[in-house]
Order: sequence, then structure tokens, then C-alpha cells
Amino acid sequence: MLTQAEQDEARKRAAAVLADAGIALTDAETAAIEVADFGLSQLDETGLEIVVYVNTPRVCAKELVLFPNQLCPEHRHPPFEGTPGKEETFRCRTGVVHLTVDGDEIVLRPGEQYTIPPDTLHSFHAGPEGAIVSEFSTQSRDELDVFTDPQIVR
Amino acid sequence: MLTQAEQDEARKRAAAVLADAGIALTDAETAAIEVADFGLSQLDETGLEIVVYVNTPRVCAKELVLFPNQLCPEHRHPPFEGTPGKEETFRCRTGVVHLTVDGDEIVLRPGEQYTIPPDTLHSFHAGPEGAIVSEFSTQSRDELDVFTDPQIVR
Repeated sequence: MLTQAEQDEARKRAAAVLADAGIALTDAETAAIEVADFGLSQLDETGLEIVVYVNTPRVCAKELVLFPNQLCPEHRHPPFEGTPGKEETFRCRTGVVHLTVDGDEIVLRPGEQYTIPPDTLHSFHAGPEGAIVSEFSTQSRDELDVFTDPQIVR
Repeated sequence: MLTQAEQDEARKRAAAVLADAGIALTDAETAAIEVADFGLSQLDETGLEIVVYVNTPRVCAKELVLFPNQLCPEHRHPPFEGTPGKEETFRCRTGVVHLTVDGDEIVLRPGEQYTIPPDTLHSFHAGPEGAIVSEFSTQSRDELDVFTDPQIVR
């Protein structure tokens, strides 16, 4: 588990990455940046820093910060409550993102994007300079995500 | 009606505004920037420049460019096909946006946002420096929009 100090440091680092890219956050948003280590306590290798802009029953938008080479591990968003599950579009804002969807590799550079259908296995990692990804999606229900690695806790 | 030259000039100007803000577009996206004059042929006063990132049956995301003081006139997004109508969140990225929702005035500065419920009258205009607004929403069906001014053609 990450210590509070480790979380605070990652939050501060992610906020600086966003500020450098000219992406403005409110103070409340900065304080609420989610630092996800997926229960593995190896944030530099496996992790994600997340700003949730909006998450209603219909629409969700986030900014995802990936530190250099940081990986978001393979998972899928299963159907729930009569919906097909979360549909998400990843749009690369800065850096390079290597996205794997159902075994296919896709490289996203700034201005490039890809839409991942619901219930489809995917993972992604940043290149050596890190990356910012905007995510546009249906409702996020992170607690329902199914990760391939059974050690992962979301 | 705007001439092709007027449209091209507005498209070029909007692309420059986005580039200045560090927002990367593909060449295809730049070429496809929508210049909306709402049929009034007074683009400097009433208009909007739009980049549609994604518009699926479930999710839509756009970047809206407003030139200085430019106004998007009052309209609402009515219910359709069993849905309550388009729900949209406007997030100010640069400049200042003056949003009016059901008669209430809201001022958005960079990093600030507001979610407009479906079927709710709203209009917005930029301050004297212009503005960029990210829109996160359910599906866009522009042809269904209901404008208060009967002269408007979308």
C-alpha cells in the first residue's frame, strides 16, 4: 500500500505534469487527484493518476496522467444494470501511449485517439516521456472493473 | 450564408487558437473544424467553431472555440428516441465563458465547469479574449436542437 507521503508526492507530480501542458484544474480537483497503484505498491511501474471531471449516470470524462513508462494493467469493463458496460475513448494529449486492445497494439501520439468497446480487454502504458490521456466515456463504475492479474485491487 | 473563404478563414483562426493552447489535432480534424454561423451570417457576433472528437450513440466529446465575445444562441436539446435528450458538461479551458442556463448566469474560468441537464434552455458567450470550452456529453444530434430565435438554422 502506498503511504500518504507517496500518494501526496504522486499527486503533486501529476498536477505539475497537467500544469505544464496548460491544463487548468481547480484547487479542489488538484487535491482530489486519484493515485491508483492497483494494490501492487509499485507506482513507478504500474499505476495511473486520475482527474475525474464529471461522472454522471450517462457521461464521464477524466484526465489520465501516466508517468514515464507507467502501465495501466489489462482489464475490461463488464456489462452492468442492463448496460453493455463502459465504452471509452482515449485521446492522447501529450507524450506517446501504447494501447493494447484485445491483443492488438495501437500507438497514440498527441491528437490521436481510439475508442474501446465495452467489455473488451485493454491495457496501456506511456513511452519514456510519460503521457496525458483524455478519457471520454459512459459512466465509470471502477469497482466493477475486471483485471486479468488476480493480485490487483482497484 | 458564409462564403467558403469566410469559413476557411474561421477554421484557420480556430485551429490557431487551439494550437496556442497546446491542444493537438490531427490534420483531418483541423480540416473538419465546423464553423457554425447558425444561418445568421454574423459570425463575429453569433457563432461557434467546433472540433468533434467522438460522437457515438452513447458518448460525445468536442472542443468548442469561441472568438472574442462570440455567442452561441439560446437553445435546448429535447428528448429523442426514448432518451431524456443531450446532457452536456462545459469545461472552460482558456478565457472566460458566460453561460446562461434557464435564466441563471454562470461564469466559467479555466478549470471550471458546469453540467447542463437535458432539455434545458442555455446560451453562452466568450469574454473579450475568446475562450476554449471542452464539451463532454451524451450523443449529439444537432439537427434536433431547438433554438429560441426562429431565424436560426443549425
